[in-house]
Amino acid sequence: MRDDTSLTTDRRTLLAGAAATAAGALFAPARARAADDLDPVRKALAANHDAAVKRLQDWIRLPSIAAENRAMPEGAAYMAKLATDAGFQTAEIVPTRGHPGVFATLDAGAPRTMGIYFMYDVKQYDPTEWSSPPLDAALVDKPGFGQVVVGRGAVNQKGPQATFLAALHAMKAAGRKLPVNLVLVAEGEEEIGSPHFSDIVTTPQVLAALRKCVGVIIPTGWQSPATGGVEINLGAKGVVEFELVASGEKWGRGPREDLHSSQKARVDSPAWRLVAALSTLVTTDGNTPLVDGFMDRVRPLTPRERELIRLASKNLSEAEAKRAAGVTRWIDDLSWEQALERLAAQPTINIEGLVSGYTGPGGKTVLPSRAVAKIDLRLVPNMTKDDSIAKLRAHLDKRGFQDVEVNVSGGYDPTETAEDSDLVRAMQATYTRFGVPTTLYPRLAGSWPGVTFTGAPVNLPAGQFGLGHGSGAHAPNEYFVIKSSNPKVMGMDDAALGFVAFLEEIARR
Amino acid sequence: MRDDTSLTTDRRTLLAGAAATAAGALFAPARARAADDLDPVRKALAANHDAAVKRLQDWIRLPSIAAENRAMPEGAAYMAKLATDAGFQTAEIVPTRGHPGVFATLDAGAPRTMGIYFMYDVKQYDPTEWSSPPLDAALVDKPGFGQVVVGRGAVNQKGPQATFLAALHAMKAAGRKLPVNLVLVAEGEEEIGSPHFSDIVTTPQVLAALRKCVGVIIPTGWQSPATGGVEINLGAKGVVEFELVASGEKWGRGPREDLHSSQKARVDSPAWRLVAALSTLVTTDGNTPLVDGFMDRVRPLTPRERELIRLASKNLSEAEAKRAAGVTRWIDDLSWEQALERLAAQPTINIEGLVSGYTGPGGKTVLPSRAVAKIDLRLVPNMTKDDSIAKLRAHLDKRGFQDVEVNVSGGYDPTETAEDSDLVRAMQATYTRFGVPTTLYPRLAGSWPGVTFTGAPVNLPAGQFGLGHGSGAHAPNEYFVIKSSNPKVMGMDDAALGFVAFLEEIARR
Repeated sequence: MRDDTSLTTDRRTLLAGAAATAAGALFAPARARAADDLDPVRKALAANHDAAVKRLQDWIRLPSIAAENRAMPEGAAYMAKLATDAGFQTAEIVPTRGHPGVFATLDAGAPRTMGIYFMYDVKQYDPTEWSSPPLDAALVDKPGFGQVVVGRGAVNQKGPQATFLAALHAMKAAGRKLPVNLVLVAEGEEEIGSPHFSDIVTTPQVLAALRKCVGVIIPTGWQSPATGGVEINLGAKGVVEFELVASGEKWGRGPREDLHSSQKARVDSPAWRLVAALSTLVTTDGNTPLVDGFMDRVRPLTPRERELIRLASKNLSEAEAKRAAGVTRWIDDLSWEQALERLAAQPTINIEGLVSGYTGPGGKTVLPSRAVAKIDLRLVPNMTKDDSIAKLRAHLDKRGFQDVEVNVSGGYDPTETAEDSDLVRAMQATYTRFGVPTTLYPRLAGSWPGVTFTGAPVNLPAGQFGLGHGSGAHAPNEYFVIKSSNPKVMGMDDAALGFVAFLEEIARR
Repeated sequence: MRDDTSLTTDRRTLLAGAAATAAGALFAPARARAADDLDPVRKALAANHDAAVKRLQDWIRLPSIAAENRAMPEGAAYMAKLATDAGFQTAEIVPTRGHPGVFATLDAGAPRTMGIYFMYDVKQYDPTEWSSPPLDAALVDKPGFGQVVVGRGAVNQKGPQATFLAALHAMKAAGRKLPVNLVLVAEGEEEIGSPHFSDIVTTPQVLAALRKCVGVIIPTGWQSPATGGVEINLGAKGVVEFELVASGEKWGRGPREDLHSSQKARVDSPAWRLVAALSTLVTTDGNTPLVDGFMDRVRPLTPRERELIRLASKNLSEAEAKRAAGVTRWIDDLSWEQALERLAAQPTINIEGLVSGYTGPGGKTVLPSRAVAKIDLRLVPNMTKDDSIAKLRAHLDKRGFQDVEVNVSGGYDPTETAEDSDLVRAMQATYTRFGVPTTLYPRLAGSWPGVTFTGAPVNLPAGQFGLGHGSGAHAPNEYFVIKSSNPKVMGMDDAALGFVAFLEEIARR
């Protein structure tokens, strides 16, 4: 997922402390609880285990990377084949102006239909940083976790998605009728910000199919290794990424190419201009946006959202959250509850990167012709991407920075799903059935393109669901647990069982 | 030279327009004027031409690069051999805590002694950017210039230095007694900011020898291809290079490692902190330092300096200066004379580079743990490097930025040489003898470590002298003219003759 790093980081942060604080009553070893009518499927999963693992390994060995235009048609075709192999009766490639999507349907003759979101692309990687080659999909014993598969895409998102497919294969093998129909929508551009995903989703036949759905999930595998717990977020912040660029070219002042720095005495500096423009965007502590009207559309937290945050602050460990984030203090030395509230409710203007002039070791006496700040905004309801960028543009123009470019590369609006939706209730019921502690949180501080489903014209509940565990999205040595040696988290087969239970829970509502 | 880019850029800027405006009376073809008692040396230069060119080529083929610790002892030994081959009776390696220098003396039994500064190191290079391999020292026909040698160090500084050595060889071959004694001081760390050069110069025997000198020159070859003219600067600004670093590590706030950007809602940002600190250093237009007390020691321009600037503004072309700098307007739309005055008189705080977080193509949702601004200061008399850095530190501390690091990598104080010094008068007389138009300018806006000679304890006049032409210092395809097809600039033999005339001019005073 695009913001998987956030999701996992946040999840780790929010959940890792729960071992100490979560209500013991909620938790029981998964296997003990799961010994019920799922047994035939469990047996089929065990029988098909090797095939399911090989399916995941083969998939990892075909990396589709949109940013590198690498194996995109192949990845889409492979995705379609994975769907038909798993029992989808139709699976078609959906062309876009970018890379193709895949639309597949499985009609089980059931009254209800569930939407499933897959991404077939993976993040770029640098093999030299890996302890095991990122395309080997090697099975490795990871102390404290058990047998894991190591490879690019292991957790983000092929591992959880292959686990979902394993559930479908096992149900078929066990002769168990699928309790819901399925609509699968997959894209290959998740890692570059899903620029054409809404085109895929609004393709007439896809939209028509989605409109029959109860909701949409993306399969995940984010159980906390400390507690086995998961978080259910009732939405996620929106995100906008852009470059703020000051240049002699656009400004008409300063140099067109990097110039010797002695000329600073008589030549304007685009780098200083960028600093001046940046310094108008936030308070001097960097923590509160000052862009004119930026906060106008912010919907204050509801009483229920405040209550959820208060509950989360009791349930989660601040010390663990700080350790995971690598910080010793929150901004303004906020309390834990205040920090959680701000994480859910505060729109942000963040500098992702600064690039200007000479960036190598030591110095070089140049007056750069161009300076760039890479920025991301995080938006809360009812802010929108378009409105936020328009306000930023007006803010800069009003202060005479008409020449400073705002080059948007991607982003989407915030997403929300109601706590009382069948989707969220089914997630809660399934996790509870497996003895997995959950934390309800108003809004993920990270972002995912859920608004494509929750917004018009689809208007469905959408969120993440899954058991099992992996980590290292976007990082070296990404892994996903195949056979767990940690009693808190599930291996691939049990996680697949979780999807079976979830679909049955959806059917039951 | 460390700031050769500046020197050549400035020279190009300042001189290229002179063709249109310079007093025609000053200029006459060099050969016509030079037909005098220098003829025997001229003949010897012609006879030794091939050997002199091969000497330069061989030198280029041995690149000493301090930043890469490449061929440093070899470069120093080669430098010493070049000196003894040219007639220096002593030539010794001077060890330092860094890379060695070379100290050589030539006692001609003359009443006066001249100091010569050489650098035996060259700038790094990327061979893929060159049209001719940078170590081939190929002889190439360059349209509009004639036969040039292309290679790293061709103009910066081996070409002009080899031309000086060719003058010594030719005088010996012509049986002409050297009119002055010589003291040669060479370093191999010029391109990394001359960190140990003052240690070399203050070595007792070196210091004792330099104290006998009339002054010091570094050989140059910077005739304007448009006019043949050269600039005589009566000094140069000082320079300080440093990194301003904001980090979670030092700050105790913000992350220790790059963090997912969703955490911005509750975690402080070192990048925003850097922006806040930077924005206190200069006016919002980026053009006037605001560091407390920074300007206290600035000595205003003298009436004579103002007059020189006024004269230069008549003599030089603003249009050409703007073209060379790639700008359409000076700061504040200054007039040409104001721009020249500011170039000489204005201390500057320049951003050389900005580096933080993600710097690749597109975006990446991180909250960087560290942000760096690479800065250079240009100082005018009576500012000093140490005082300027102390004031910057105090300025930051006073505003609560105690954690923002100021990591100085190099620099030196401004240098000045009196207009009525024998050195400057000898330069003027020699250039005039060769019909080369000159422009006196109070202070080079770029920097060179001349203060090592002009400051205590050496206290000598020091500057650049030379005829001939080359360009491309620090850049690909660096070249130096061997046989000129441009009537405005001299080839290597004539440039060598210029050094002979200069030494005789020094002896005559």
